[in-house]
Amino acid sequence: MSKAKAVILVSGGLDSTTVLAMAKNQGYDCYTLSFDYGQRHCSELLAAERTSKAMNAVEHKVVKLDLGTIGGSALTDTSIDVPEQLSEGIPVTYVPARNTVFMAIALGWAEVLGAQDIFIGVNAVDYSGYPDCRPEFVQAFEDMANLATKAGVEGNKLRIQAPLMKMSKSDIVQEGTKLGVDYSLTVSCYQADEEGRACGRCDSCRLRKIGFENAGMSDPTRYVD
Amino acid sequence: MSKAKAVILVSGGLDSTTVLAMAKNQGYDCYTLSFDYGQRHCSELLAAERTSKAMNAVEHKVVKLDLGTIGGSALTDTSIDVPEQLSEGIPVTYVPARNTVFMAIALGWAEVLGAQDIFIGVNAVDYSGYPDCRPEFVQAFEDMANLATKAGVEGNKLRIQAPLMKMSKSDIVQEGTKLGVDYSLTVSCYQADEEGRACGRCDSCRLRKIGFENAGMSDPTRYVD
Repeated sequence: MSKAKAVILVSGGLDSTTVLAMAKNQGYDCYTLSFDYGQRHCSELLAAERTSKAMNAVEHKVVKLDLGTIGGSALTDTSIDVPEQLSEGIPVTYVPARNTVFMAIALGWAEVLGAQDIFIGVNAVDYSGYPDCRPEFVQAFEDMANLATKAGVEGNKLRIQAPLMKMSKSDIVQEGTKLGVDYSLTVSCYQADEEGRACGRCDSCRLRKIGFENAGMSDPTRYVD
Repeated sequence: MSKAKAVILVSGGLDSTTVLAMAKNQGYDCYTLSFDYGQRHCSELLAAERTSKAMNAVEHKVVKLDLGTIGGSALTDTSIDVPEQLSEGIPVTYVPARNTVFMAIALGWAEVLGAQDIFIGVNAVDYSGYPDCRPEFVQAFEDMANLATKAGVEGNKLRIQAPLMKMSKSDIVQEGTKLGVDYSLTVSCYQADEEGRACGRCDSCRLRKIGFENAGMSDPTRYVD
């Protein structure tokens, strides 16, 4: 019997790698999808390739997409600095409509593959400042997806699965470790260097550090200094 | 007083050029957006540039996006032939989740610009085979957009405007002509040549021809033969 297929959005970071492990553990054939979207570093794409291989994804695709063209974020616009302190409200690292765009392309690939499930590592606990990381957004996207596609129209309901939504970073690390994730392969830093070493100071690094601390685990992250 | 901004999705074709004229006529400052998405011909991008200029768009952006990576359509996959007869059901020229992806990127640009309106030339009359050309899809996208973005969260409601939704091709041609659209600048053909000349035989050409005929107007399209 052939297994059900799922598209997993992977960034090579801690969260999406854990989601990949969870999807695999649920028995899906995993098709991983990453984006070359004008982000500052390519180390996350290398990490996504590495983790997809390590976890036996059937296929890993990288879609090129020049989000820098529309600007508006410190992650794609080099004229805006990445902040090194946890910020209030919606941070400048927010890429306008990024999750919407990524999920839309995942939806296209799911249609081509005949997959009914799309997994994404959004999390409302640590990223409360990002409007597109909330459960009501994910639900609205799923509703839209079922009207947008052949599959939805023909009654094969598409599901957007966001299993980390309500988990803390330490819960996530513990779950992934239980499922055999090697977090030394992952890169979370917003400004990692070419070898994938983390700055240790940006929002993403801070949240990750605290996650390992709270889980009482040693942090396998490679830092610049 | 500064005018309200709108993002207009333009393909250089008959429908989206008419939408641009309608948005301009409603008093918006128009920001036009096109995609270099692995479509077979670049003549539609040249047409989009031409019509944006002719209609005084404030800015025309082209976002590169490699939808060919995920495959599944005759428009991006050269191993699938473009059909030359009107087809039943969902045609092979359907690009999986294309409108969802394009609207998601338009949403990102609207956020950056502070625009509350996104215009798209979808039409449920001629393109009933495309699930993402129906009013219920457009409404679901708008609902999702208002949960996905800073603007939506802060109460500045985003609107997805699809003014052609219920118009026939001849209605569209008549409306555009009234607003001064020069249709000789537009390209609708799925397989136009490098100079923008149309094949006259694909679905898109046939619908366009019938539109001019039913409107009792002469067809300014340049055909290959």
